[in-house]
Amino acid sequence: MATRPSLKELGLNTGKKARLHRILHKHGLGNGTAIFLPYDQGLEHGPRDFFENPVSGDPRYIVKLAVEGGFNGIAIQIGIAEKFYWDYAGEVPLVLKLNGKTEVPSDSEALSPLHADVAEAVRLGADAVGYTMYVGSPAQGADFEQYRKVRADAERYGIPLIVWAYPRGSAIEGKGGKDSFYAIDYAARTASELGADIVKVNFPNPTKREGVKKEYDREFGEQEAVDAVVRSANRSLVLLSGGEKAGDDGVIEKARMSMEAGATGLIFGRNVWQRDHDESLKFVEKLRDLLAKYPS
Amino acid sequence: MATRPSLKELGLNTGKKARLHRILHKHGLGNGTAIFLPYDQGLEHGPRDFFENPVSGDPRYIVKLAVEGGFNGIAIQIGIAEKFYWDYAGEVPLVLKLNGKTEVPSDSEALSPLHADVAEAVRLGADAVGYTMYVGSPAQGADFEQYRKVRADAERYGIPLIVWAYPRGSAIEGKGGKDSFYAIDYAARTASELGADIVKVNFPNPTKREGVKKEYDREFGEQEAVDAVVRSANRSLVLLSGGEKAGDDGVIEKARMSMEAGATGLIFGRNVWQRDHDESLKFVEKLRDLLAKYPS
Amino acid sequence: MATRPSLKELGLNTGKKARLHRILHKHGLGNGTAIFLPYDQGLEHGPRDFFENPVSGDPRYIVKLAVEGGFNGIAIQIGIAEKFYWDYAGEVPLVLKLNGKTEVPSDSEALSPLHADVAEAVRLGADAVGYTMYVGSPAQGADFEQYRKVRADAERYGIPLIVWAYPRGSAIEGKGGKDSFYAIDYAARTASELGADIVKVNFPNPTKREGVKKEYDREFGEQEAVDAVVRSANRSLVLLSGGEKAGDDGVIEKARMSMEAGATGLIFGRNVWQRDHDESLKFVEKLRDLLAKYPS
Amino acid sequence: MATRPSLKELGLNTGKKARLHRILHKHGLGNGTAIFLPYDQGLEHGPRDFFENPVSGDPRYIVKLAVEGGFNGIAIQIGIAEKFYWDYAGEVPLVLKLNGKTEVPSDSEALSPLHADVAEAVRLGADAVGYTMYVGSPAQGADFEQYRKVRADAERYGIPLIVWAYPRGSAIEGKGGKDSFYAIDYAARTASELGADIVKVNFPNPTKREGVKKEYDREFGEQEAVDAVVRSANRSLVLLSGGEKAGDDGVIEKARMSMEAGATGLIFGRNVWQRDHDESLKFVEKLRDLLAKYPS
Amino acid sequence: MATRPSLKELGLNTGKKARLHRILHKHGLGNGTAIFLPYDQGLEHGPRDFFENPVSGDPRYIVKLAVEGGFNGIAIQIGIAEKFYWDYAGEVPLVLKLNGKTEVPSDSEALSPLHADVAEAVRLGADAVGYTMYVGSPAQGADFEQYRKVRADAERYGIPLIVWAYPRGSAIEGKGGKDSFYAIDYAARTASELGADIVKVNFPNPTKREGVKKEYDREFGEQEAVDAVVRSANRSLVLLSGGEKAGDDGVIEKARMSMEAGATGLIFGRNVWQRDHDESLKFVEKLRDLLAKYPS
Repeated sequence: MATRPSLKELGLNTGKKARLHRILHKHGLGNGTAIFLPYDQGLEHGPRDFFENPVSGDPRYIVKLAVEGGFNGIAIQIGIAEKFYWDYAGEVPLVLKLNGKTEVPSDSEALSPLHADVAEAVRLGADAVGYTMYVGSPAQGADFEQYRKVRADAERYGIPLIVWAYPRGSAIEGKGGKDSFYAIDYAARTASELGADIVKVNFPNPTKREGVKKEYDREFGEQEAVDAVVRSANRSLVLLSGGEKAGDDGVIEKARMSMEAGATGLIFGRNVWQRDHDESLKFVEKLRDLLAKYPS
Repeated sequence: MATRPSLKELGLNTGKKARLHRILHKHGLGNGTAIFLPYDQGLEHGPRDFFENPVSGDPRYIVKLAVEGGFNGIAIQIGIAEKFYWDYAGEVPLVLKLNGKTEVPSDSEALSPLHADVAEAVRLGADAVGYTMYVGSPAQGADFEQYRKVRADAERYGIPLIVWAYPRGSAIEGKGGKDSFYAIDYAARTASELGADIVKVNFPNPTKREGVKKEYDREFGEQEAVDAVVRSANRSLVLLSGGEKAGDDGVIEKARMSMEAGATGLIFGRNVWQRDHDESLKFVEKLRDLLAKYPS
Repeated sequence: MATRPSLKELGLNTGKKARLHRILHKHGLGNGTAIFLPYDQGLEHGPRDFFENPVSGDPRYIVKLAVEGGFNGIAIQIGIAEKFYWDYAGEVPLVLKLNGKTEVPSDSEALSPLHADVAEAVRLGADAVGYTMYVGSPAQGADFEQYRKVRADAERYGIPLIVWAYPRGSAIEGKGGKDSFYAIDYAARTASELGADIVKVNFPNPTKREGVKKEYDREFGEQEAVDAVVRSANRSLVLLSGGEKAGDDGVIEKARMSMEAGATGLIFGRNVWQRDHDESLKFVEKLRDLLAKYPS
Repeated sequence: MATRPSLKELGLNTGKKARLHRILHKHGLGNGTAIFLPYDQGLEHGPRDFFENPVSGDPRYIVKLAVEGGFNGIAIQIGIAEKFYWDYAGEVPLVLKLNGKTEVPSDSEALSPLHADVAEAVRLGADAVGYTMYVGSPAQGADFEQYRKVRADAERYGIPLIVWAYPRGSAIEGKGGKDSFYAIDYAARTASELGADIVKVNFPNPTKREGVKKEYDREFGEQEAVDAVVRSANRSLVLLSGGEKAGDDGVIEKARMSMEAGATGLIFGRNVWQRDHDESLKFVEKLRDLLAKYPS
Repeated sequence: MATRPSLKELGLNTGKKARLHRILHKHGLGNGTAIFLPYDQGLEHGPRDFFENPVSGDPRYIVKLAVEGGFNGIAIQIGIAEKFYWDYAGEVPLVLKLNGKTEVPSDSEALSPLHADVAEAVRLGADAVGYTMYVGSPAQGADFEQYRKVRADAERYGIPLIVWAYPRGSAIEGKGGKDSFYAIDYAARTASELGADIVKVNFPNPTKREGVKKEYDREFGEQEAVDAVVRSANRSLVLLSGGEKAGDDGVIEKARMSMEAGATGLIFGRNVWQRDHDESLKFVEKLRDLLAKYPS
């Protein structure tokens, strides 16, 4: 197993360290690992994601589930946070997601516009903020510009910054696609270079090689790939995301490889709440069993 | 009938609660329901909307009609508000519409530019502000950006924010169109995710299925669709709009289904003022009879 | 009876007119008169004012009393407003009192420091703000300076400004004292010159003549004096305050003279809540009977 | 003759009312009507407009002409105002034109950029500001955005805002063109909805019907059309512009129809100064004779 | 007669010149002279000044009187301006008095605190602002500090600045008193040195010599004294104030000497309105007859 950096060596200012300590050591297993519950799919994909388990469309149900499941944080948009977090404020850490978009228009020049700022996250008692960066998008100029203020504010207010580092856009499509090892690895490094405290990535697929740079155009194992991705993030802690709901065994095997690689934890949404309440908690229990093996 | 959330559970700060209480319990029927009179068609469609009943082109006539009809609010642009609301200030709540556009240029990249801000609404004694969001437009980046300041200011000043959540733009046209259940449902959820206190939507048409996401590509009844839309808005109160003038029976039946679904009320313009004065008030009376059955 | 100016002729901007309409015509008797309930004595005098009727020390009891008594507004400090107004937001208009002080230090250079601003009043959904001006105090320079921003903000946000115009300080003590006709008349005029929308004064005592300017050093009747005070306020509406609790008949007779003089209403605190609950409401009923005779 | 609204009923704040009173009742005929002299053609069209009467290219000549002709105002750009208005400051009201452009690039996405602000107009002693809005242009987003600040500043400083409401751009060209009744009517309404105190429009041509909305696609007389346009402006006062120089009789007949419709006055540039000095004054005299018949 | 400087040689920017032209050449006699009506005595002295002619306590009466009497301006405080100037906006120039105080506390360290700013004067359509400077007061540090911003804003907005230059305070009392030639002359020069466009002074009394500097401690005639005062003001135009009501002949003789000295005009309040309406106008007529002899 790769070594996960400890909070002491991340160059964090006091506020960021206090809040990350809270997330990693006062919630969840309290062992330095984390499982986050993301719940911005209503915006990113629309209500269709809730058809499988209609109660999942109710934010109150989800926030309560985050508490019950012992999550280390719940990531939601400002509108949901304003109206639903109060009920459970302080019971589960809040990650205020600062940007987001609908899936309706084309993703060829993907950009996720801001609709909240770090000061609002402070007001809501959030322990972290989330920002989606579309690495490689033709709109990266506008992306970096709005990100810059988020990062600077996060530093100023001492709020940890979690970057959803997603390769996206027409150019990425021509270079292996958004799940390629090349793209994910580059995204992790980009987030790290630009100051993420935590970077969220999808699991890399090293078989997607069409159009990738030559260094990536050879055979890599999945473990090898995820190891590299975590190394690319260096002192940005890494969360692996679950993406669409899939078979539990495969999902958990990828989670295991991620933790082996030195990831700090997982961020699983649809795989959790697109099943009924008790099944959700059972699945979370499996993830916790896994994380229990990777204390720091 | 679905349950409408009460003001106490909406996460409102004191100013928003005071103003919504005023709108919902001190005006109109005072039973927690609402009928709003929108009057921005002179900008959105031009004076042609007034040809059917020429006196409707006179804002003074309309503001007076809002008072006479016992409306819970009148939604107007800054220019009309500055010159006509003073006469009736405080007699009917003002919803200052903060953005708007002409219908002349193409809607393919629809964006409704701001021409007033929340501080001006405060100065005019408004009890709410209105913002048109073109959900799914390729211009959603610019839309969300200007919306963000409106939402934050509305929070800061304690002014309820009503979002006109309208699917629009070239991408929507290719995915069922602006009236499809898919589009309306997504729009309601988007407004909720982004922090609307009230969301105004058009009545969903579940038969428009060409190009919609697969979850929506099956048969839904109208009641089933409007139920889903209101649920998607969760703690954002829902207003159903009347749109173009149509036969009274059909219009009222849709209003009834909306209220059954848990909507808070209606927002009817052309259906009200594109007829002569007494007919307008008679039609409003029918709507009030309906709302009287849905107290909260 | 003197003529009370109508809202239309007060030079009010739209927001001020909307809010005053609400206070004067949508609450209380709705006839253009007003009774306000002031509840800042806990700061100004300390809890000793609550000894007579201990439950009066509970702000929740008082806010509820304002609703039950059909008051046109309740005047409270920021701390009470933040914690107690939410429960009844919109049910009774809020007058946020922006300054105040303890009675502990000497009043010889009286100044009432600000502890909230108009923007906070807006956020709390207040329909007016209150400011205590110590007219004639040696500290008038500091007083006018802090007042200036309040007045300008009230204009900018369209919030009516109620000035508690209190003669006070060592110089006033040498010129007839704070209750003299001279001092009260000057205070009313000062508030009017400096832009109060409503001025709250104590009932003038024309027998206090020692040291007053020669124009005031002759016999005046009480009605003559209060007539003059209301005239001095010109287009600032006038509220007469009740001051310390006193015999009901005398209090109501002074209220009657005030209304005859053209006052808009009354602001009675201790006379209301320094008795038990039902007695409070009975006393308010007598005041309402009086005001019902003075519609505008 | 239609009724022209009086200054008292326009919802004007004190500064706007003072300045409009000055323009309409202290200059020109002083009877509530107005003739303005616009002189921004040097920017909008270039010096070619001065070839007919070369001295007209000298701003000093034109400002003096405005004084001699008893105009109610002269509309000029910042550069001309800075260098030429001082000589006659206060002798004729200044309308500082805040935006403008050259005619060189295509008008298909017409936008008139700002080059001065309202504070500068105040500093120059202007009694009004002018803004060109290209109604219906694909650039309406940028137009409304820059307009918003102008309108808000004009309100804040109490400076009347005159909107040159010009239909323009590729979409208008496909819908009857910039002179059609449809387009002019829509432009007048748009300016009114967005808060113009005065709107300047060209005379509508109801025979231009190709591509207009169906409500406008029938026969209208010129008087009927201009009546409608003035009604669409409601409480925004209307000025009819002369446009290019044309035969005097036709020009004056249109001016007469405009005044019959309830316009407040005229704004004539090239028709005035594209002739020699004495002819200019004679032509102005004819216009004054006309306006003398429409006092308010 | 001394030569009065013309507007062209005062170093005025465009806005100041436009507004002074308006005051001096478009109102009153229009001959470059001026009579102003000051009406801040309700604040400075209290309502006692209105006892002689009770209707004078009504600001509406006074503003109307300023219009009827053909005054070149009326000087009032912000509260009176906000509520009473609208009715006559533009009919008589407004001089917004920016500071003022009550007479209650001691004048030994006199300071006149600000309660409005230049931007508000702009919003109210004022043609000038007024500032009371207590020359020689021990509080001159605070006085000059607040004055500095007023002067700079007046320059920035192009609003003429009228300084009420009043010697005042304990030190002045020991050096000839506030009416001595020494003190008035020093005050005029101080206002000029500090950038007044117009300076208002009281008529100097050269017989008050006890404690004055030795240069003033000899016999001067009244004409000689007022000549010197006007010279001391150099390019600041001079207004002589009437002060308390006194015998008409003496008052007018002093006015005559002032005009001979090169003053621009007069500022008379109590001498005007402490008599009945028709007498007021007759007295004003005498002043106008005088000013008609001093055109510029």
